[in-house]
Amino acid sequence: MDRTETPCGLDVALLVIGGKWKPLILFHVQDGPTRFSEIRRRVGGVSEKVLIQQLRDLVEMNVLLRRDHHRVPPVVDYALTPFGETLVTALAPLCEWGTVNRERVSAMRESTAMERNALVG
Amino acid sequence: MDRTETPCGLDVALLVIGGKWKPLILFHVQDGPTRFSEIRRRVGGVSEKVLIQQLRDLVEMNVLLRRDHHRVPPVVDYALTPFGETLVTALAPLCEWGTVNRERVSAMRESTAMERNALVG
Repeated sequence: MDRTETPCGLDVALLVIGGKWKPLILFHVQDGPTRFSEIRRRVGGVSEKVLIQQLRDLVEMNVLLRRDHHRVPPVVDYALTPFGETLVTALAPLCEWGTVNRERVSAMRESTAMERNALVG
Repeated sequence: MDRTETPCGLDVALLVIGGKWKPLILFHVQDGPTRFSEIRRRVGGVSEKVLIQQLRDLVEMNVLLRRDHHRVPPVVDYALTPFGETLVTALAPLCEWGTVNRERVSAMRESTAMERNALVG
């Protein structure tokens, strides 16, 4: 086996959901069509410009479906495609891992931050 | 439910493996202790500086164990901790998803690139 090859399809998955916000976006639209403003509120901390680009990427990759309801003021919403649903299913164990390890990860981040402060203090 | 909350532990998982290279790094050390130079070769396309920082983050989060064999020239290798192994297990379905959808994703990326070229051409 050529060891420069990725040993699995993780590189492909990262092409689709790489980036800070995309996995979170998918989870925040999984209950059905969700308006842009609501996605922004749920994801939290993302700029409008960045969110627009991330949504556009996900639509281009056929993970999300964008619907423009042609109203004034504009109503646009986003929903998972069937392809996007398979991706959310594949992400589920990672969610569970995070839920199980939430306190542990928080504690490690705090102790790391404390060590850094001690070094500069 | 407060809809600004992440509906699962995905935010926690992204704290640990967020970033372009970390999931790939984990997969490239899963067969046992792996030397820095070998990780760099396997991951491909990553600068030495960035790889050093990503490995340091993963060690700080107790996902990887760094061993310095105290030799000249230096021999340093990295291996998954038991905690890191649970993370690789949680990433497995995403790998499978990528393997199944490799051709589909490639085709979508090509057609998107062609459309962009057509727009500017």
